[in-house]
Amino acid sequence: MKTRKSLLSLLRIGLGTWLWAVGSASFADEGMWLYSDAPRALLKERYGFEVTPEWLEHLQKSSVRFNSGGSGSFISADGLILSNHHVGADTLQKVSNKEHDYLKNGFQAKSLAEEIKAPDLELNVLMSIEDVTARVNAAVPPGASDEDSFKARRAVMAAIEKESKDKTGERSDVVTLYQGGRYHLYRFKRYTDVRVVFAPEQQIAFYGGDPDNFEYPRFDLDVCFFRAYENGQPAKIEHYLKWSQSGTKDGDLIFVSGHPGRTSRLFTMAELEYVRDIQMPRTLQRLFRAEVNLLSYSERSQENARRAKEDLFGVQNSRKARKGGLAGLLDPELFEKKAAAEKALRKKMAAREDLRDTLAAYDRIAAAQKTIAANARAYNMLEGGGGFQSELFGIARTLLRAGEERPKPNGERLREFNEAGRESLELALFSDKPIYDDLEELLLTDSLTYLAEEMGASSPLVQKVLAGKSPAARAVELVKGTTVRDLAFRKKLYAGGQAAVDATSDPMIALARSVDGEARAVRKVMEAQGEAKQQAHAKIGQARFALEGTGSYPDATFTLRLAFGTVKGYEEAGQQIPAHTTFAGLYGRAREHDDRPPFDLPGIWTDAKAKIDLATPFNFVSTADIIGGNSGSPVVDRKGEFVGIIFDGNIQSLVLDFAYTDTQARAVSVDARGIVEALKKVYGATGLVKELETGKRGE
Amino acid sequence: MKTRKSLLSLLRIGLGTWLWAVGSASFADEGMWLYSDAPRALLKERYGFEVTPEWLEHLQKSSVRFNSGGSGSFISADGLILSNHHVGADTLQKVSNKEHDYLKNGFQAKSLAEEIKAPDLELNVLMSIEDVTARVNAAVPPGASDEDSFKARRAVMAAIEKESKDKTGERSDVVTLYQGGRYHLYRFKRYTDVRVVFAPEQQIAFYGGDPDNFEYPRFDLDVCFFRAYENGQPAKIEHYLKWSQSGTKDGDLIFVSGHPGRTSRLFTMAELEYVRDIQMPRTLQRLFRAEVNLLSYSERSQENARRAKEDLFGVQNSRKARKGGLAGLLDPELFEKKAAAEKALRKKMAAREDLRDTLAAYDRIAAAQKTIAANARAYNMLEGGGGFQSELFGIARTLLRAGEERPKPNGERLREFNEAGRESLELALFSDKPIYDDLEELLLTDSLTYLAEEMGASSPLVQKVLAGKSPAARAVELVKGTTVRDLAFRKKLYAGGQAAVDATSDPMIALARSVDGEARAVRKVMEAQGEAKQQAHAKIGQARFALEGTGSYPDATFTLRLAFGTVKGYEEAGQQIPAHTTFAGLYGRAREHDDRPPFDLPGIWTDAKAKIDLATPFNFVSTADIIGGNSGSPVVDRKGEFVGIIFDGNIQSLVLDFAYTDTQARAVSVDARGIVEALKKVYGATGLVKELETGKRGE
Repeated sequence: MKTRKSLLSLLRIGLGTWLWAVGSASFADEGMWLYSDAPRALLKERYGFEVTPEWLEHLQKSSVRFNSGGSGSFISADGLILSNHHVGADTLQKVSNKEHDYLKNGFQAKSLAEEIKAPDLELNVLMSIEDVTARVNAAVPPGASDEDSFKARRAVMAAIEKESKDKTGERSDVVTLYQGGRYHLYRFKRYTDVRVVFAPEQQIAFYGGDPDNFEYPRFDLDVCFFRAYENGQPAKIEHYLKWSQSGTKDGDLIFVSGHPGRTSRLFTMAELEYVRDIQMPRTLQRLFRAEVNLLSYSERSQENARRAKEDLFGVQNSRKARKGGLAGLLDPELFEKKAAAEKALRKKMAAREDLRDTLAAYDRIAAAQKTIAANARAYNMLEGGGGFQSELFGIARTLLRAGEERPKPNGERLREFNEAGRESLELALFSDKPIYDDLEELLLTDSLTYLAEEMGASSPLVQKVLAGKSPAARAVELVKGTTVRDLAFRKKLYAGGQAAVDATSDPMIALARSVDGEARAVRKVMEAQGEAKQQAHAKIGQARFALEGTGSYPDATFTLRLAFGTVKGYEEAGQQIPAHTTFAGLYGRAREHDDRPPFDLPGIWTDAKAKIDLATPFNFVSTADIIGGNSGSPVVDRKGEFVGIIFDGNIQSLVLDFAYTDTQARAVSVDARGIVEALKKVYGATGLVKELETGKRGE
Repeated sequence: MKTRKSLLSLLRIGLGTWLWAVGSASFADEGMWLYSDAPRALLKERYGFEVTPEWLEHLQKSSVRFNSGGSGSFISADGLILSNHHVGADTLQKVSNKEHDYLKNGFQAKSLAEEIKAPDLELNVLMSIEDVTARVNAAVPPGASDEDSFKARRAVMAAIEKESKDKTGERSDVVTLYQGGRYHLYRFKRYTDVRVVFAPEQQIAFYGGDPDNFEYPRFDLDVCFFRAYENGQPAKIEHYLKWSQSGTKDGDLIFVSGHPGRTSRLFTMAELEYVRDIQMPRTLQRLFRAEVNLLSYSERSQENARRAKEDLFGVQNSRKARKGGLAGLLDPELFEKKAAAEKALRKKMAAREDLRDTLAAYDRIAAAQKTIAANARAYNMLEGGGGFQSELFGIARTLLRAGEERPKPNGERLREFNEAGRESLELALFSDKPIYDDLEELLLTDSLTYLAEEMGASSPLVQKVLAGKSPAARAVELVKGTTVRDLAFRKKLYAGGQAAVDATSDPMIALARSVDGEARAVRKVMEAQGEAKQQAHAKIGQARFALEGTGSYPDATFTLRLAFGTVKGYEEAGQQIPAHTTFAGLYGRAREHDDRPPFDLPGIWTDAKAKIDLATPFNFVSTADIIGGNSGSPVVDRKGEFVGIIFDGNIQSLVLDFAYTDTQARAVSVDARGIVEALKKVYGATGLVKELETGKRGE
């Protein structure tokens, strides 16, 4: 009862009384719940479902985070992992070359020996959660400036992480929840020997391309199989998901266990206005120019298209998502109801003597947001990478800063150089993924141009960066001149520390050095403002808890969350869209578009049509509360069995960043039955099917 | 001698002493010369070529301006006109539909009866030029404010135009030259019954697509044949170009007669900085988002792709041109030399007592430029169409303003509603070109979003425009609700004048009305600043004439100019690129790219390969001074015979906007011999070939 009540309170507070949040249904399947605070009572009351500790622990430890940005799950005792093709794409791109384009053409290992090792993929499995809020807050001296407060908090978080890492050997991250209302220590088991087992052709994984992305009905085999290894052998896994034989039907309760990346539901109006008026438009500008850049590069040759493919997908995907998000914020219904909700909450605070001074927290956030707005351009350009879009520059800057940061006490370093995160940093830094000079030159030329546009061609900083040359000439000089593409050089410089870095005349490192003062300075400003906002949000959160009771969920933070929902279609433009699609629908859509890109089918799919049971469910939608980062999340039924895998949200779900709605917003999954049918009939992947059906690798 | 001297003076002044302007060759083929001030002495001395009045008049009256934005020429006594495919594309798009895609698949009329009438194409032939500088300047009272001065100038120009139109019946435009240094009255013969005779497939007209656009070597049959009609019969043409039998060879002197659109060579540094730091970046932003928008729309279906094709080409073409232009401005060599030249000229002015007060003109321009920068965003959004990208909105605004402007005295109207331009305005307003609601909704949604991004979603103006709806909902409501797509309604409202417009409740007209106050206000500000700059430029021009002598050419104004140059290859990255390409090169390039788009060939071209003489010249480059607007310009030899047609500049030519260079910059033409070979061997267009070879239509 408590949980349900507080959820509805949250709805009233966070979302107002909108039709689409508390509409015709008497409840909504809202929430990206912490595993340490699962919605037990809510599920009991609404669905008569009992969350047992065993059920929860099993799902938690079967869930996998892809640090490249996505989710997945163990599905066999022998380390088999299922995620999305578009989550695996980063790795597929890195292990491909001109001769073997696994991203485009797919890959199938016929034996363990053929499985391909990813160059820099790190997977995390959440092992335990500990609330460290009291210790973190106690470390911050009362009355400290924002900057000092930030430093103190950074130091204590680094100390907690290092202690935990030293004690358990596990990756240990202090996670900031409720915008600063809570701090939790998350411990993860790391897997860094991860190999590609199976990927279909991108054309079926991402069937319908950009036009069908974020749309429904849908027909995508967006899956990619990996295997975790330990000591050169398939990892032995205790917690993995059993493959369901029955699948889902309309109205079924399902659960989604994954890593939603970021939501902004608890933002104040000052923050939402910033997102709507400044952040989103600027991000879209960057995405538009990146898309045009990559498309025109890709059009020049097949090999160019291959090199840019994964970047291009990422840019187009973000562009469509942000356009949807901005459209949501420009919808006065959403925005005005957000405003009304904030006003109502503030009124309640004003009415209670003990909470009245919380109102100042809103002003503090608004003031911080102003400073952030004034510094955002410089921050994005100098620290956020907008002005230096280059893998080589990124490596150069990491080497430069590693030299400076690592001699410092652990708690005083830039956060990414903490001892606790060292292994992950080194995995990324020493990746031997391919770097293409022509693409580097193209992107660096464009981003140096963008830097000049944004900061003024005559500004001393831009003049320093360009060193008397045009952006194109400067980019070529830097890319051709740098040695950081050489792994041995990287390792030497990293091992040699600051002295080695100081001694090198590498031009890319020299460039990173020349702007590092400005970049660090603007980062410091932003960190202080972030701290100010966190403290203010912590105050607002306390007041909200006092007024509404506890028991809700924090905004998404790319940490493990549990969502739930119902398998359910929806109405659009007067038409009822069923929850499930089938293979018959896939072939129908191809026919409808005369098999032209992006609606063409790989040859192997055309050939297999007669063998396939066309009535097999292929994709389905549910009301589960998801967002980017959830891609690859397992969908399980009451028994905790694997019934599908999240790969998208529909276009109406793009406002979930700001508020939940189940009127039309839906999470889109590949159906477990569709996966098996395709593996069997199209790919003849009998070994793989046997492994996921039995939970064990065949010999 | 005089002309040559002054040209070199201009080079020193306008361009500094750069290597690339006065480089290894002892002269440069610079200049977009007025027909009223042709470089006679220069051509005599440099090439031993005598410009006779007859030669000049014949070329002038054979030249045709496409008011849709391009150039062309008469090539038969029966009204046959040759221009580029990409100039004709606007018309080809408008006469196409779902069943007949002439833009993509080409068109060939087998008889006069089959020639297709363009819905709204106006062609102009320059008949005479008259200097009206004295009268224009005399009308402006000394000491008047910029706004009053603008009004006075507008009034006298309208009066001159109307008088001329009434007297001669010819279209009469007062053209502002030298940024306000001179005013000339141009009289044109108009052709408005123009029909499509022949167009090749876009895939060969624009072979190599965006990747090869602005590149060389090149293999494009970028031609489109039209015919001018009068009284329902092919127009009888006195001046048309004879088709050359010999073509061009390396080192030949050639002439280009066409309509360069706009250059910025006489801009002051304050103006160039504005272009570099504000105008170009913002224009590119708009182009990037437009390109992404149109591409994602196009990808949804073949029919979408057809509908958006011409717009998409235009956007991609502009984007590549602007990127090249911005790259030029960000090249410190160009910019610093421009600055040095301005400094040198100012020093000379300062040294002469009678010219010293001219220096204030630079400050006046800089001040005006600041005001322009402060108003540019609002101007672009409200008056420039950035916020209302919709054909229907454009029609609605024209109807609204026609109602208000036409009752005013001729000299007080917004310039586009002058009596002298009435026929041209009505031709455009009553065009029955297709308007696609889905594309209108897409573009209007995006531009309303852009308006909110640029002017702030909370601004009263944006709130007024959106009327409490999201951009998407508002766009759909407007497009579905308006009646201005109906030609009869348009004509009724136009005829009914202000009373009829006031009486209508059409939502698109209501929208145009609701922002017209703000739009007109910001236009007024910009016009006054433009006037201030014109007066200042006139002063600078006078001082320059006093210091350097007269006899140069003004910046481009989309009026007829004569350029000249040499057929000549160039060196790039250590490689010598020959002036001519051949059909063998075309087939080679297709093979090199496995015939994949955009390097695939139309089937008819693959089939015809055996018949074609592969050694026939296809495209060629020359040093002639051209810019956008010159597309379709005839290239003639000393005899005035047609040897080719301009269709592009190479990537190095994109800086010609700001300064001439002949180191690598080249104009790209289709060779007359290639055109004939293709017409004969690929298209079997024997009638057309006979007409252009004999100058007469066969019976």
